[in-house]
Amino acid sequence: MESETSNAAISFSTMTASAVVVEIETAKGRFKGLGFSSYGRYGHGGLLNERFIPRLLNAQPEDLIDQVEGNFSMLNFWDVLMQNEKEGGHGERSGAVGVIETAMWDAWAKSEDLPLWALLARDVGHADDGGVAAGETVIYGSGGHYRNDAVDAQDIADEARKCFDDGYAWFKIKVGGVSPVLDNKRIEAAIRVAGASQLIAVDANCSFGNKELDIYLKQLDQFALRWIEEPVNPLDYEALTATIKSIQTPVATGENIFAVADVVNLLRYGGLTPGRDTLQMDIVLSYGITEFLRMLSFAESGGWSRRDFIPHAGHQLALHVSSGLGLGGHETASVLDTPFSSVSVDTKIEDGYAYLSDKPGIGIEYKPSLYKYFDGMLN
Amino acid sequence: MESETSNAAISFSTMTASAVVVEIETAKGRFKGLGFSSYGRYGHGGLLNERFIPRLLNAQPEDLIDQVEGNFSMLNFWDVLMQNEKEGGHGERSGAVGVIETAMWDAWAKSEDLPLWALLARDVGHADDGGVAAGETVIYGSGGHYRNDAVDAQDIADEARKCFDDGYAWFKIKVGGVSPVLDNKRIEAAIRVAGASQLIAVDANCSFGNKELDIYLKQLDQFALRWIEEPVNPLDYEALTATIKSIQTPVATGENIFAVADVVNLLRYGGLTPGRDTLQMDIVLSYGITEFLRMLSFAESGGWSRRDFIPHAGHQLALHVSSGLGLGGHETASVLDTPFSSVSVDTKIEDGYAYLSDKPGIGIEYKPSLYKYFDGMLN
Repeated sequence: MESETSNAAISFSTMTASAVVVEIETAKGRFKGLGFSSYGRYGHGGLLNERFIPRLLNAQPEDLIDQVEGNFSMLNFWDVLMQNEKEGGHGERSGAVGVIETAMWDAWAKSEDLPLWALLARDVGHADDGGVAAGETVIYGSGGHYRNDAVDAQDIADEARKCFDDGYAWFKIKVGGVSPVLDNKRIEAAIRVAGASQLIAVDANCSFGNKELDIYLKQLDQFALRWIEEPVNPLDYEALTATIKSIQTPVATGENIFAVADVVNLLRYGGLTPGRDTLQMDIVLSYGITEFLRMLSFAESGGWSRRDFIPHAGHQLALHVSSGLGLGGHETASVLDTPFSSVSVDTKIEDGYAYLSDKPGIGIEYKPSLYKYFDGMLN
Repeated sequence: MESETSNAAISFSTMTASAVVVEIETAKGRFKGLGFSSYGRYGHGGLLNERFIPRLLNAQPEDLIDQVEGNFSMLNFWDVLMQNEKEGGHGERSGAVGVIETAMWDAWAKSEDLPLWALLARDVGHADDGGVAAGETVIYGSGGHYRNDAVDAQDIADEARKCFDDGYAWFKIKVGGVSPVLDNKRIEAAIRVAGASQLIAVDANCSFGNKELDIYLKQLDQFALRWIEEPVNPLDYEALTATIKSIQTPVATGENIFAVADVVNLLRYGGLTPGRDTLQMDIVLSYGITEFLRMLSFAESGGWSRRDFIPHAGHQLALHVSSGLGLGGHETASVLDTPFSSVSVDTKIEDGYAYLSDKPGIGIEYKPSLYKYFDGMLN
């Protein structure tokens, strides 16, 4: 197995991202898998180069084979990556592992001549709940970031209009960064374009939780929005429980929860309700699909369904997992021009749904804003 | 402010460690501070070079000054490091921040011509609880690792004898890595040397928690040991609570808890009791002293005392914090020859206590097994 890494400066101000290529050789030939990190956690080069990649390079082919089934096992692959790692402390290594694991899924799907969504539907199984079919998923747009001029209700309206015109199911904007009066104008502008408050969600990015903001939270609640996202610190389960009790609006959270051990605590202590609230763990930042499947499994054992999951960030991996397993939908930045905006060019967005193509892998090759970071790594 | 980093391969098989030097200039001159990472989490180079060090290099001198007091503020320093970081997900960046923060404390203490313990006693305050004086601390030895030959009761006895002969207060050995029968022989050998079961603690490294091991746990409980360390996954508060209820022996945990947000949950949900159980958060791996003080503060608000804290790992920073603030003691590997074994040569160990010297800083210069990693970084 060959493995290359590089760090590519991307356009989130000072943030960087990690791109990984793995190459596998099977009876069917050689296949390259591409992995790319997610948004918000970065600088994984040291972890990749000193911890995770050396373990892969030192692994023997038989280490990756399921001893019972006799074939390649992603679980074995994952176990090799995690050799000698201590329990607890999930937050950065989970992103380093996730980017390698993503590349491996991409390579494996290509070796099976399947898009990842079809590989997942075949090997893990799509939700059999009468919802959307495999290869399709609900898709919503996020945007509404703050600009230098805080009185930007017109910008929000323009973004919302573009989002719905482009076929996204609903739109999400930022709140909590300016005064409630200004935020209300932004929300009202978005609702006016959407035509219904249920088609607008808001993301507080953990800015609530003290008494003054509690009043603001109740005011927000009056809008009857689709959800209020990350109202408090993601690990403050007591504050989350109190927040949920104080409002009627559903809550979405989980983008800063990176391991099944933390999901267990969130669901045990956080006061969330299956069927109402939304879980948003970022698959790439959370050790990849292997750990995400453990999260799904634990949640399902407690009454949650796959439809309650809408992963964070808007990367191609989440798009394929959502449509391959039958999750509640896919988020992507509908306006910004970043590697996590929109979807690959072979994906059609229409009437609130994304329709994925049959091209093998996760489709980074078909997303120019992302693929350019692999320049020079593929030869 | 100048800053240099390098990664030095150290002798924990494939683990690496990060060494950081900061140089500060004050009215009193220029001072170099040395920071070194802790044990078990490594590969922080990417996080240091892409996230934390650039923020320091971009900071203006006034960013580090407390606007009210008008002097240098470690809290401001910490806030600069953490600019634009998201909430949650503590585990690796906490170690990267910790190693820089350690270097800064070292430089600052040197600029005040004080050992760090004295700076902490002066500025934060030593526990006023009638216990040991500032500049001293209880010290215990850890060892008893598994060797290739699992029937190593004689090795354990030799290690324990050396530990007590060298003046350590008690001895800690590993359990859970072999059969209960063999582990019992190891424990019995250690107790025989110690003369009392209260002078032997055991570290399970998260190996307990399922039903079969539950029986083993109750068997361990019969020894009336000083403590059983990390019986279960550090984030599984439900299993920890159940474990504590099932045994009489005190529990020690926390070395895989890296932020105050996680400490809050551990103390809220983990079933631990102040005055009986021991908290072992690793200061370097947990964003450094600034965050550790927040942990102490939260714990004290819930009935815990400083004596309940005995930090993990055995590095010079923990030695100074324990003796400067009046914590419950200091752990260090009493046998192995590693950067985290023993103490700096200017520190005297006698009758269960460590007596620190008046040399400025945290004393890495006086610990040859550690100082050698700074070769070539100090000119």
